[in-house]
Amino acid sequence: MIKAVVEIRLKPGVLDAQGKAIEGVLDQYDVEGIEQVRVGKLVELRFATDKDIEAQVETLCEKLLVNHEMEDYHYTIEECGDE
Amino acid sequence: MIKAVVEIRLKPGVLDAQGKAIEGVLDQYDVEGIEQVRVGKLVELRFATDKDIEAQVETLCEKLLVNHEMEDYHYTIEECGDE
Repeated sequence: MIKAVVEIRLKPGVLDAQGKAIEGVLDQYDVEGIEQVRVGKLVELRFATDKDIEAQVETLCEKLLVNHEMEDYHYTIEECGDE
Repeated sequence: MIKAVVEIRLKPGVLDAQGKAIEGVLDQYDVEGIEQVRVGKLVELRFATDKDIEAQVETLCEKLLVNHEMEDYHYTIEECGDE
């Protein structure tokens, strides 16, 4: 089986509300030196075929998974067992 | 500057509502052979220090970022410029 892992992140400069919320409570957890927190999405697509995988992942990133005004994406394609 | 990238995924067997929603519309996008879609979170922590980073990341994963009943996590620590 083959798995595509798509990492979707907010573009630099776009306000990250989730990240800001985490930053706002860091002082309760005895941690220091964290300048910024950014939160993104991981989308894993498991394929039962190895036909046109890259083209299909691009189609889904372009048309369904990513908001291109606010987000960037990057993906890797890897073999995976039947985890 | 140093960055920790925490990948948070639902444990196998836990219902993934976002993944199911994406699976439900795949047929509108001329893709085939996708058996499963799983959606997780990416949390990036940018440190201005290099002191006790691993310990601090563990503290945040254990106490703040991860729901241990339903989620697993994995993280990497890497050098990063001032992107």
